[in-house]
Amino acid sequence: MKITVLAGGVGGARFLMGLVSELTRTHPDGEGGSTAEITAVVNTGDDLWLAGLRVCPDLDSIMYALAGANDTERGWGRAGETERVSAEMTAYGVGWPWFTLGDLDLGTHIARSHWLREGLTLTEATARLTERWSLGVRLLPATNDRAETHVTVADSEGPLGADPVAGATRSIHFEEWWVKHRAALPALAFTQLGIETAHATPEALAAIADADVVLIAPSNPVVSIGTILSIAGIREALAHTSAPIVGVSPIISGAAVRGMADACLRAIGVEVSAEAVARHYGPRTAGGLLDAWLLDETDAAAAAALSAAGIRTSAVPLWLTDERTSADLARAALDAASA
Amino acid sequence: MKITVLAGGVGGARFLMGLVSELTRTHPDGEGGSTAEITAVVNTGDDLWLAGLRVCPDLDSIMYALAGANDTERGWGRAGETERVSAEMTAYGVGWPWFTLGDLDLGTHIARSHWLREGLTLTEATARLTERWSLGVRLLPATNDRAETHVTVADSEGPLGADPVAGATRSIHFEEWWVKHRAALPALAFTQLGIETAHATPEALAAIADADVVLIAPSNPVVSIGTILSIAGIREALAHTSAPIVGVSPIISGAAVRGMADACLRAIGVEVSAEAVARHYGPRTAGGLLDAWLLDETDAAAAAALSAAGIRTSAVPLWLTDERTSADLARAALDAASA
Repeated sequence: MKITVLAGGVGGARFLMGLVSELTRTHPDGEGGSTAEITAVVNTGDDLWLAGLRVCPDLDSIMYALAGANDTERGWGRAGETERVSAEMTAYGVGWPWFTLGDLDLGTHIARSHWLREGLTLTEATARLTERWSLGVRLLPATNDRAETHVTVADSEGPLGADPVAGATRSIHFEEWWVKHRAALPALAFTQLGIETAHATPEALAAIADADVVLIAPSNPVVSIGTILSIAGIREALAHTSAPIVGVSPIISGAAVRGMADACLRAIGVEVSAEAVARHYGPRTAGGLLDAWLLDETDAAAAAALSAAGIRTSAVPLWLTDERTSADLARAALDAASA
Repeated sequence: MKITVLAGGVGGARFLMGLVSELTRTHPDGEGGSTAEITAVVNTGDDLWLAGLRVCPDLDSIMYALAGANDTERGWGRAGETERVSAEMTAYGVGWPWFTLGDLDLGTHIARSHWLREGLTLTEATARLTERWSLGVRLLPATNDRAETHVTVADSEGPLGADPVAGATRSIHFEEWWVKHRAALPALAFTQLGIETAHATPEALAAIADADVVLIAPSNPVVSIGTILSIAGIREALAHTSAPIVGVSPIISGAAVRGMADACLRAIGVEVSAEAVARHYGPRTAGGLLDAWLLDETDAAAAAALSAAGIRTSAVPLWLTDERTSADLARAALDAASA
C-alpha cells in the first residue's frame, strides 16, 4: 500500500505520526514498522538561506517529529536544544537575531548546505539527512528549485528619513513575517519568488502518480499546501493519479488548528471555515483537488453542501491530542479514500 | 610606534599578548590601551574548508587569546566550549570526527564563511570578526588567497585491497597530519597547495613596509613563519623595509617550546636548535631575514657564532610562563631592535 501525503511542517508532522502509528498497527512488517510505503511531499516555500546555511523549516519539523527528536513543549525544533552558536552569530552581526537556530538544528543545516554545495539536489540531501533516523516515512521536497514565499505588506516604515508613502508596499520573506512579526502585519499578498522556473521533482511526481491514496494534511492551505500546489507539475500529477485524494481540514469551528492559517486565508480572500477551504481546493470532478474531505464534528453542518458540490465529506474528531486521536484520524482518512 | 609581527597560532598569540601588555605600560593611550600600533601578519597555511565552513586556526587562536576568550587549560579554542553541533555533524557523516569544531568557535566559522561567500576578502572578514573584540592588535592574514599546507607522508595503506607500494607517498592536509596523526607520521615534505598563485595582501605588505620594528614570533619556523615567507611579496617587503627585523627562537635547549616544530624542522633538514633556526632564517646582511635574534639563556653559547655570522644575538629567558615573562620578552625584542 502506497500513501502519499502533501504536508507542511508541524501540522503535517503530527498527521504523519498518526498515519505511521495506524499503519504500523494495521500493516505491520513484523519488525516494528509497517509494510505500507508512506511518502510525504513537503512544502519548501518557507526555506531560506541564512548566513550561508540552507534552512528548511518544514522538512526539518517533520524529520525531527517522526524521529522523536522534536521539542514537543515548544512546538518546534529539537528537544534539549541550546542556542550557543546563534548567540555568537548575533554577536558578530550575522543572521537574524529573532530567528534563532538551535545548536542541534544547526548540525542539520550545516550538513545539508555542505551537500547542496557539493552538487546534491535537495531531494538527495534530504535522503542523506533522514538516513540517520528511523522515520517510517520517505521525505521528499516538492521541488529541488528555490521558490521562496514572500509576503507583501504595507511599507509603514518608508524610505530612510522620509514619511511613508501612502499605499507603498514591501515584500519580506515568509519567515520574517511569520516569526518576526508573528503574522501580525496584514498580508496583502503571498508570492513565491522563483516559482516561474521551479519544477516538481521526478520523485514527488512519481509518488503522486504511483500512490494508492493521496492525502492532504491539515497544513496551512495557503503557504504550505498552496505553495506545493503552485509548483509546476504537482497539479497535473494530482489530476492524473488514479489514487483517491482525501483532504483534512486545518480549520475547526472557524479557527485555525495551529499556526496562523486564518491570517493567510484572509489575505487570499478565503473565509476561515472548513467548508471554504474545501471549496478553495475544489471538487476533483470540477477540476479541483478533492475526492473527499474530512472536517471536524463541530463543522458537520457543512457536510451536506460539500457532498452536493461533489466532495464526499465526513465529520470526524479533528483535534489531535495524542497518538490515539492522530491514528484515528489517519484511519478515518484512509476509510474516506476507500469509500 | 608601529610594530609588525609575523605570527602563527598559539605561540604567536602568547607572544602578542606580552607585546600588548608591554606597550600598554610603556606607551599608554590613557584609555587602558596603547598608542603603539601592533599589526600581526598571520599564517593562513593551516586554513581549510570543512563541511562548507572556512576554518582559520591561527587567526582564530590569536583572536580568542587576545580577546581573553581562549581556553588556556586546553591550549586551543574558546573557553567554556561545548561540542553539540560537531556531534550532530558526525552523526550525519559530515566533517572530520577527529577535528572537533566547538559550538562557540563555529559561530566564528559560520560568520566568516558567510562573508567570504558574499565576496569579502579574508582580510575584510577578519576585520569584521575582530571588530567585536578589543584585541589591541590588528590581525591581517598574510594572503587572501587559498594556499594550504599539505604534508607528504609514506602511503603505508596502499590502494584498496593491494599491498602498499614501496616508496609510494600521499599528501594530506596539514591539519590531518597535525591533529589526527599528532605529527607522528614522518613528514617527507611540506607543500603549499596553491602557493604559485597566492599573493601577500596589500595590507600585509604595507604593515611590513611602514613598520618601525618587525618581529618574528616564536612560532613554528616551517609551517607558520615558513608558510608566511613563501607567499609572493612577503620576502621582498621584508628585504626592503627600513625597520629592523628581530626574531625570537621557538627552540629552547634543542626542543620545541610547544607544538611539533621539531618534527617539521627535521622534515626540511634543519637541526632542532636555536642556532640552526637562526641560520635557516639567515642574516639580513646576506640576503636573509634577521637583523637580530633572541635565544634562551640556556642556548647562550650559540650567541657568539651567530653574531659573528651577522645576526646580533641576545640570550634572554624565553619561557613564557605568565604575562610578566611575556612582557619582558617583548621588551627584550624591542630593545634588540633598537640596539
